[in-house]
Amino acid sequence: MVSVAIMGHGVVGSGVAEILLTHKQKLFAGLGEEIHIKKILDLREFPDSPVAERFTKDFEEIISDREIRIVAEVMGGLHPAYEYTKRCLKAGKSVVTSNKELVAAYGAELLEIAKEENVNYLFEASVGGGIPIIRPMNQCLVANIVNEVAGILNGTTNFILTKMIEDGMQFDDALKMAQDLGFAERNPEADIEGHDACRKICILASLAFGRHFYPDSVHTEGITKITLEDVKYAENFGYVIKLIGKVKRRSDGMIDIIVAPMLVPFKSQLASIDNEFNGIMVRGDCTGDVVFYGKGAGKLPTASAVVADIVDCCNHLKQRRFLYWADSKESNIVDYKESVWRMFARVTGEGAEQKSREVFGNINVNTKNGTKRIAFLTESMTYGDFLDKAAQLESKGVKVCSMIRIGEL
Amino acid sequence: MVSVAIMGHGVVGSGVAEILLTHKQKLFAGLGEEIHIKKILDLREFPDSPVAERFTKDFEEIISDREIRIVAEVMGGLHPAYEYTKRCLKAGKSVVTSNKELVAAYGAELLEIAKEENVNYLFEASVGGGIPIIRPMNQCLVANIVNEVAGILNGTTNFILTKMIEDGMQFDDALKMAQDLGFAERNPEADIEGHDACRKICILASLAFGRHFYPDSVHTEGITKITLEDVKYAENFGYVIKLIGKVKRRSDGMIDIIVAPMLVPFKSQLASIDNEFNGIMVRGDCTGDVVFYGKGAGKLPTASAVVADIVDCCNHLKQRRFLYWADSKESNIVDYKESVWRMFARVTGEGAEQKSREVFGNINVNTKNGTKRIAFLTESMTYGDFLDKAAQLESKGVKVCSMIRIGEL
Repeated sequence: MVSVAIMGHGVVGSGVAEILLTHKQKLFAGLGEEIHIKKILDLREFPDSPVAERFTKDFEEIISDREIRIVAEVMGGLHPAYEYTKRCLKAGKSVVTSNKELVAAYGAELLEIAKEENVNYLFEASVGGGIPIIRPMNQCLVANIVNEVAGILNGTTNFILTKMIEDGMQFDDALKMAQDLGFAERNPEADIEGHDACRKICILASLAFGRHFYPDSVHTEGITKITLEDVKYAENFGYVIKLIGKVKRRSDGMIDIIVAPMLVPFKSQLASIDNEFNGIMVRGDCTGDVVFYGKGAGKLPTASAVVADIVDCCNHLKQRRFLYWADSKESNIVDYKESVWRMFARVTGEGAEQKSREVFGNINVNTKNGTKRIAFLTESMTYGDFLDKAAQLESKGVKVCSMIRIGEL
Repeated sequence: MVSVAIMGHGVVGSGVAEILLTHKQKLFAGLGEEIHIKKILDLREFPDSPVAERFTKDFEEIISDREIRIVAEVMGGLHPAYEYTKRCLKAGKSVVTSNKELVAAYGAELLEIAKEENVNYLFEASVGGGIPIIRPMNQCLVANIVNEVAGILNGTTNFILTKMIEDGMQFDDALKMAQDLGFAERNPEADIEGHDACRKICILASLAFGRHFYPDSVHTEGITKITLEDVKYAENFGYVIKLIGKVKRRSDGMIDIIVAPMLVPFKSQLASIDNEFNGIMVRGDCTGDVVFYGKGAGKLPTASAVVADIVDCCNHLKQRRFLYWADSKESNIVDYKESVWRMFARVTGEGAEQKSREVFGNINVNTKNGTKRIAFLTESMTYGDFLDKAAQLESKGVKVCSMIRIGEL
């Protein structure tokens, strides 16, 4: 019997407890040992829980219990999750988590402590919910040099964009619908401004390149400026708009990492990933593109990934699993203005088509709304060059309403 | 340093050697140990190989070498791969393989020996080439009860069908093109008759349900009877034709397993998997549908999966990884005539539409070629019922040219 504690009894935490109870037999069959929930930490009370007597409000009861070998940290937020995780690892307990904010902020430090203490710190659930991605990247693709990872990493924004694309809904209406359906929080900022996707691409980048990428070093744009008009023009050009997290190692070793809405070609595997689903593309030098698809959030999908990590810890109580990246303040991240893109722009103004051609040269123009209200695709240029040209265009009296990167995915 | 042997220097085997040599540094960084190719077994000679001096024609040199802890069996075929694998495992060496034919035929026995000897028998490369699928199913989805797995498991047939669908090519022309491009072998029977897909769905079913499924117990149909006319009718109904391997546990515990061409709805994630790519959908009770996509074959993708298994063995030389299913002669497989499907049929003959309606009742008919040459979709019925009705229709002078299952994927 292996004793575990669960810290947090919110959506994911209650799912972890539920799966450990309802899937007891299956887990026992695979492991040959029982996983026993010894303590659940939450400040609230749950008198109706089948394990009501195991709840505690006192973290010290968990840290001081030597029988507890594995702790699931599913509290979310940075504090006190960070302090608790650190103390657990230092006390020789393995920790598994779904807390992407914590992994993105303190992953390197916590992995280092886990290494020193010869325990595990695993976080399969932190990216892609129930979609296997951390373990496949870390183990199955170990014989590949991964130079690029890109994905739809946030279900809320993908749901909103899908409603705009498929049902012609306005952004605000689609957001409200997502909130009503429980796909978006009442304060949706972390999702719609791209912060959640940013944490996830940082975790994937850290894993791919072996050194920590911090969210505040990543240029991040959300989807709040995307309009229905952009969506329709994109479709005419053969693209859908998706919020993409993307990291690429250039041939000069510099890392190009970004979160932003992008035009994704219909033919891309990521284009058909709709609603609350996530999809992650990993480009290996041997495998080529491998794509992982599924529900990126939700109680049971995420909780099942946390439980899989608990099982892995049970199997590796003596021997640590290799999952590690180094801390790094290395500044080999490409400035976002130096990053090269083909761009989509939607502009309005007298002589918009002609002036856009004068400024941008060879462009692919859609004039379905006449020559005053057009959209166009540019050739490749740095984002900084694009901004300069957009300013030139504005100085000629043409307003640049939208500018969106084209993702060659 | 861990010494390994590679048995076979064909497409995959030479890829394994290549990756171990070219990715030495990356592998060392992850493992903290060097993987040393000590012997390569092949009856041919490769004087130009950078490791020419390590080739041997004598298996005894490998089995008797105590330094060799891990053996990659990439010879293919059942014999002598089976005998060699068995002897390696019994000699305390872990074995990794891409040999789906061997795993599908003798997996249970070889896994049992591996368990007894406390060594590993791993086969990530046997399904989906470089796509991570065995390890994700076995580890990441361990907290799920998987009741259904379905996939496009064979790249050759998917390439042929894609050429028929997208370029309107006839089957024979598409097959020839696949052969010219190296996607199909000169004797393509194992691919186009569905045997290769059958081996793979047997491996996935064994993994999902914990007991061995033998290929000869699985109803298997290939794609040789699919015509361009079927492809076009399917498109009109909103479907593409794909060769699908599928296994499902019914609520009564019976297992419905099959390999056959199926009509897949445009909206399915599997519908957009084209050319030589594979895609596998795993339906977990917690995660919902998870889909894995990538190149299902090829030298380096497959070899990189073999190398990932070698690395896993290096990490688990003392402690065996849990990967196991029991042997079983249990006959809880649904007879294919008892399996329930909606069906597509293409029929010709005087009064085809009216007679089809008489026999099949409520059907969705496409009469774009008139009422004598039609295609229709039926409601759900057992395959046996469908065959009976098709015979009735033939007795009324209407020829049933095609009958294809509709996959609700």
